[in-house]
Amino acid sequence: MSDSFTSLPVLPGNDWPDFQPGWVWLAGAGPGDPGLLTLHALNALRQADVVVYDALVQDAILAWAPQAEHIYAGKRGGKPSAKQRDISLHLVELARAGKRVLRLKGGDPFVFGRGGEEGQTLVQHGIPIRIIPGISAGIGGLAYAGIPVTHRDVNQSVTFVTGHDQTGDTPSSLNWQAIADGAQVLVIYMGMKHVDRIAKALLDAGRDPDEPAAVVTSATTPDQHVLETTLGTMAVDIANAGLKPPSILCIGRSVLMRQTLDWQAIAQGLEPRNVDPLGRGRPAEAS
Amino acid sequence: MSDSFTSLPVLPGNDWPDFQPGWVWLAGAGPGDPGLLTLHALNALRQADVVVYDALVQDAILAWAPQAEHIYAGKRGGKPSAKQRDISLHLVELARAGKRVLRLKGGDPFVFGRGGEEGQTLVQHGIPIRIIPGISAGIGGLAYAGIPVTHRDVNQSVTFVTGHDQTGDTPSSLNWQAIADGAQVLVIYMGMKHVDRIAKALLDAGRDPDEPAAVVTSATTPDQHVLETTLGTMAVDIANAGLKPPSILCIGRSVLMRQTLDWQAIAQGLEPRNVDPLGRGRPAEAS
Repeated sequence: MSDSFTSLPVLPGNDWPDFQPGWVWLAGAGPGDPGLLTLHALNALRQADVVVYDALVQDAILAWAPQAEHIYAGKRGGKPSAKQRDISLHLVELARAGKRVLRLKGGDPFVFGRGGEEGQTLVQHGIPIRIIPGISAGIGGLAYAGIPVTHRDVNQSVTFVTGHDQTGDTPSSLNWQAIADGAQVLVIYMGMKHVDRIAKALLDAGRDPDEPAAVVTSATTPDQHVLETTLGTMAVDIANAGLKPPSILCIGRSVLMRQTLDWQAIAQGLEPRNVDPLGRGRPAEAS
Repeated sequence: MSDSFTSLPVLPGNDWPDFQPGWVWLAGAGPGDPGLLTLHALNALRQADVVVYDALVQDAILAWAPQAEHIYAGKRGGKPSAKQRDISLHLVELARAGKRVLRLKGGDPFVFGRGGEEGQTLVQHGIPIRIIPGISAGIGGLAYAGIPVTHRDVNQSVTFVTGHDQTGDTPSSLNWQAIADGAQVLVIYMGMKHVDRIAKALLDAGRDPDEPAAVVTSATTPDQHVLETTLGTMAVDIANAGLKPPSILCIGRSVLMRQTLDWQAIAQGLEPRNVDPLGRGRPAEAS
């Protein structure tokens, strides 16, 4: 491996972006596994003067910016927005001081990540920005659990929801009846705290208590844990298992595909539990 | 830049994964910009014997696997599934011949990418697999247009929909009434062909014709084009502008944020059009 990894590739036509002093780059670090970082994010880490990072960013990723000052700006679980404003204004100050400021967030900055707000504040203060998307845990974290958020035989839509709003309560703007009626597969970010209320809202709106569900904690990290459950029992099962955030919840038949696609288990020599979990017949016959 | 990019970082604790002969790695290449590739995908490219790639994978990315055979398996726009089966079985054959097979798809393999089906077929045939998530165009492509798929003042959910099913028709399993009632922001993949029917379904279900909408074609590539429109006029505007796939459609107030967050325009020296497009007051006051 070492041989094939001695150099980063050349970008044809144009070089890798230069990180100019006084700019803020808002980047996603992905769900945890450092290998899920993008090349643009690595380029940013290598040039940054300051990295302002969130709770979910792994130490291994920060270690790729040894020349930079590392500033922790973590917050979890719907804390008051005052702190968010402080973070945004701190980014403005650092940029005005002529630093190359890398704002590094877990997952993707624009998927329940406050990247839009921070970007807006920076632009309002005349700070130039660049956005570097990241792998979102609701997609990549579930993939590491062997759960495809879409599958032709399961769903033609997928709905991503946050489990709490800025007050820390369940999100007030959501129409749970419409979500229950229309969301073929539901992926819930930060849903652990209010999982009982969320499950109840979906059940009250008519979703089947036997619907497959999964809870993935610390997705893509060495601590990844996957709980397979159902909509009706997930709240109790989470409590009994003593699971802790960060978590991604998935509700829908996609979860069944894990019986075939749990590639991390297969890589360790385990047999797939079921090669036809949807009972639709094998999509392609052995020749 | 060249200096900081002479070597890829060391993964602490464990080395980069070794690509074993006879394995298939299903990887996402992201929406287009080669810099949005993940480190794991680059690692895969550098070790692959064969790269089986889709229409949306850029040449610049394939050039990072000069040692590999490159096999085109592109298909666009809901072609019959026979071809999908052929692709899956071809992957099985290549793996059985002892190749390191990289199946490289645009975006993320599990977001309307058929990665689940291909993985299922491979596992059914006893082929070991690894999944490497990619940046999905519905998130990263919109980010390059300055559109955050979530924003605290706009939405607490986002719904991703495919614009056609396997027959090439509008997806038959979708409950458009529930989507219209519950999807605060709607992101549509491969929606260009049936945009008139999709828009009509949403309007008939009560969505406001003046709702902001955007069409991003060839997102994150040098050919990226962004059309700002409304739900009521998007079908006509797309036809008049002569836009061509690949496209991502976004319907919802998130689109307004582009007036502030069009960072590519700002990087070229343009002023933001409006620093408070939601009319909610600036989230943080200038000090």
